Amino acid sequence: MSTAKFDTIGQYLLKRLYQAGVKDIFGVPGDYVLGFYDLMIKSQVRHIGTTREDSAAFAADGYARCVGMGALAVTYGVGALNTVNAIAGAYAESSPVVLISGAPGVSEQKDDPLIHHRFGPFTFQREIFERISCASVVLNDPVIAFRQIDHAIEAARRFCKPVYIELPRDLVMAEGYPMPTETVEKFTSDEAALSEAIAETMTLLSKAVSPMIVAGVELHRRGLQGALADFVERTCLPVVATLTGKSVMSERHPAYLGIYEGAMSSEAVRDRVEKSDLLLMLGVTLNEIDTGIYTAKLNSHSTIRAALNEVVISAHRYPGIALEDFLGALASSVSLSSREVVSSPKPPESIAFPEPDRPITTARLVERLNSALSNDMIVVCDVGDCLFAAIDLRVHEQSEFLASAFYTTMGFAVPAALGAQIARPDRRALILVGDGAFQMTGTELSTHARLGLNPIVVVFNNGGYSTERCILEGPFNDINPWRFDRLGELFGPLAGYEAATEAEFEEALLNALDNHGMPSIINVHLAADDSSEAMKRLAEHLQSKIKRDA
Amino acid sequence: MSTAKFDTIGQYLLKRLYQAGVKDIFGVPGDYVLGFYDLMIKSQVRHIGTTREDSAAFAADGYARCVGMGALAVTYGVGALNTVNAIAGAYAESSPVVLISGAPGVSEQKDDPLIHHRFGPFTFQREIFERISCASVVLNDPVIAFRQIDHAIEAARRFCKPVYIELPRDLVMAEGYPMPTETVEKFTSDEAALSEAIAETMTLLSKAVSPMIVAGVELHRRGLQGALADFVERTCLPVVATLTGKSVMSERHPAYLGIYEGAMSSEAVRDRVEKSDLLLMLGVTLNEIDTGIYTAKLNSHSTIRAALNEVVISAHRYPGIALEDFLGALASSVSLSSREVVSSPKPPESIAFPEPDRPITTARLVERLNSALSNDMIVVCDVGDCLFAAIDLRVHEQSEFLASAFYTTMGFAVPAALGAQIARPDRRALILVGDGAFQMTGTELSTHARLGLNPIVVVFNNGGYSTERCILEGPFNDINPWRFDRLGELFGPLAGYEAATEAEFEEALLNALDNHGMPSIINVHLAADDSSEAMKRLAEHLQSKIKRDA
Repeated sequence: MSTAKFDTIGQYLLKRLYQAGVKDIFGVPGDYVLGFYDLMIKSQVRHIGTTREDSAAFAADGYARCVGMGALAVTYGVGALNTVNAIAGAYAESSPVVLISGAPGVSEQKDDPLIHHRFGPFTFQREIFERISCASVVLNDPVIAFRQIDHAIEAARRFCKPVYIELPRDLVMAEGYPMPTETVEKFTSDEAALSEAIAETMTLLSKAVSPMIVAGVELHRRGLQGALADFVERTCLPVVATLTGKSVMSERHPAYLGIYEGAMSSEAVRDRVEKSDLLLMLGVTLNEIDTGIYTAKLNSHSTIRAALNEVVISAHRYPGIALEDFLGALASSVSLSSREVVSSPKPPESIAFPEPDRPITTARLVERLNSALSNDMIVVCDVGDCLFAAIDLRVHEQSEFLASAFYTTMGFAVPAALGAQIARPDRRALILVGDGAFQMTGTELSTHARLGLNPIVVVFNNGGYSTERCILEGPFNDINPWRFDRLGELFGPLAGYEAATEAEFEEALLNALDNHGMPSIINVHLAADDSSEAMKRLAEHLQSKIKRDA
Repeated sequence: MSTAKFDTIGQYLLKRLYQAGVKDIFGVPGDYVLGFYDLMIKSQVRHIGTTREDSAAFAADGYARCVGMGALAVTYGVGALNTVNAIAGAYAESSPVVLISGAPGVSEQKDDPLIHHRFGPFTFQREIFERISCASVVLNDPVIAFRQIDHAIEAARRFCKPVYIELPRDLVMAEGYPMPTETVEKFTSDEAALSEAIAETMTLLSKAVSPMIVAGVELHRRGLQGALADFVERTCLPVVATLTGKSVMSERHPAYLGIYEGAMSSEAVRDRVEKSDLLLMLGVTLNEIDTGIYTAKLNSHSTIRAALNEVVISAHRYPGIALEDFLGALASSVSLSSREVVSSPKPPESIAFPEPDRPITTARLVERLNSALSNDMIVVCDVGDCLFAAIDLRVHEQSEFLASAFYTTMGFAVPAALGAQIARPDRRALILVGDGAFQMTGTELSTHARLGLNPIVVVFNNGGYSTERCILEGPFNDINPWRFDRLGELFGPLAGYEAATEAEFEEALLNALDNHGMPSIINVHLAADDSSEAMKRLAEHLQSKIKRDA
């Protein structure tokens, strides 16, 4: 018999997370998770404290989108339940976040005591998270704990969804037992279906006059940005992206046309897509946002849609084909194209900005940001008009645009940007956020400041919940005006600016770009009736919907 | 057939809530709930906007504790899921909060579309809330909607727990149908058991030498403060309260001795309770907090425990006796006592404060607040050392002390105080909160400021998560220091003060008491190693527990 000491459950969990790319774990301490925190700070994994638990979950989500997996560790009840919205968001948005919740010890739970943070039977917390995770485990048995950990981490990786790991505090230091892990069956595509689908696709492509690619969010979540870029290089097909898939391909690439979102798209993009005689839809989720609230007009007879595990051509399906296999096989089948790269309409390299006394508008703000964007930036965008305005932003490389574009939870951007910057210290975050959303989670900027990070926050301050205002006006859309530019009085280091005119914005932006030592925040005063074109179209649509329903 | 037009479902819901005492509904608008908001502002019910949804739930909880029921209305998914922790807290703390969640329309849900804010099957949100509410209804059928509404509101009232009401947006304006409501069976006590229990209790009371009352949280939740006061008047028995039951009786009453919490109590109180030869425990929940982490030493052979629906004397039970019936019958049975009122140890009416250059400590701070408390104040306390310190505060009348004392969720106080002040505009809130907890939800003070409320916030600023620090020290207990006194720079109107010495605190407090036009916040700098006596005892206990587990 071996006398070798095995890892404790806590150690093993930290080790496996580290191997999966999780070098940092976000969270707020609490007594049911303190033992695990103690182990964490003695390990290779770094702890990043946030002010609230939901911020930790958003940060882990942003981190996961940048490096493939993110994690947070919180206490039982009051901690974990504070993350439900953010974890549901990670589920809806396909982001592999590992939620570690401390829990009362197994021995403590025995007599069913009324201990603090308890809100019902001890199983309830897991039952809640089972609905918003692709795997949930309670590590209450040392014999199988290692296998459960492997299973959960593998599920997060494989399905790109959150997982729930509950760790009773009296088992953190319990020695686990290295059982053989179940072999994970790798999904393999159906060879016959694959070659038939490729053959049909090649035939259709060869006949098409105006084929194009619609690139979707699943390409990003499966890490297929490189494969897409390669395929585009080979075929020289023009590309549009969906809003949730925004930045899956460099938006400065000559073949890139812009965002397609049904009636919300720019006229030029919409025209090109809806008149195309062959759309190659790669990893596109046909959700409400990406279809511009179902205003997309796509002729299903002229589409080839490669989803996660099947390819659909016109009205017939090829089940059992993995997206990556289809894309890979397709790239190998096409010879390097002699097709001319279709040059997309570019934003002018230099715009006439500022016109000094001109009040700043959303459109001009975005134009100016477009010319300020550089390769080392990562744009993190909240919900509301800044999201719709961002349709017109052209970010540089892959994965440079993060948003809760489908689940659309307010308060995502500031904490998610924390995660992104921790994951990618070589990048600087440009955070676009509305005034209402900033009031939800914006003070998490305190953590950026504490850690010496230097995001630039642009607050689209239009005095309330403007998206709602466009749908139904009422006093409930008003909020208390905050002087966002003075946030540095509350905590720091932090530089703040106020901008109502183009000249003021220009000065603030240049100062912020120049200030690498701390976060900067620019409070941009927009007229209450100013909004992006896309938002106007959306609001019009929602308004008529509500009237119809009422 | 009648042609009379019935209420719409939305109107009926508002009407029934108003009748139940809900004159104000908290919440953040969102498109799935906008139609209901529109109805609300046209009704008698006032909308109180908060910056976040969890704040709205805490506010509704504070409101419910003051007037018997509270409510919030939020949007689907991103809104409702943000309240899970606060609603679980209301469940654990027995507070009747009505959560109204908008939802996609019934007609919208039909084709199972991928619409925004969606995170899974449309039933999942209800399934999550079923675990933290005593009733949950989805109003998707106009025929039974009115009955469902009656049922939910009655359940909240009866069980003092949260309820979940989901309202699909296309049914807000649908006409409901006034079906006869099921008759609610009122719980009636078993007459035989009641008279036998009263007889035994009277016998025991007549023989006892040092009988006393332990008053618990259920007296508050069932609105039995008056019955308790009456009983105490008649018997002149001395009274202690549990921490979760704090302020169920005026703490300035001559018969009141203080808080009993096992080893965490003051020596004097502990001695009296544990040496008493007959404890009459009324509405006491024997949870971890109230028993001082199970350090309470109560001799079960000399206790009479009246719980919600049974009376337990020594080792035998009288099931089927309602707490209110027992208390009422007991009060009728005792003749007005000739017993001398036991005078409790009182805090000196005037203390020697300030000693000008003396650094302020928790103990002296509480002493000073004790003499500042007046009849028109309501103390709302967060979790951490301020909660333990508050054991030594003596509030004036019933219901003047609100806290998440059992569930112990950080971030409760500032938003709950909003609810309390809206419910009781005649009261002024004194908010006690730690620096860590304030960073979670403290900016909700923006709403107090917007509405012209004037709470006084005392921040116990000891540089991090001190409660955790006492259990296990580590860098994860550090937080970014905020200059809380400068919060008025960010939003207002708001007056801020900083206090490190007694003289500074005295000046700040006098100014705050004098300033009735806006919120005041006092940033009290406490030494990192300063803490209340109760917290030292608690930490010692938890520390040994963690060491034992590890």
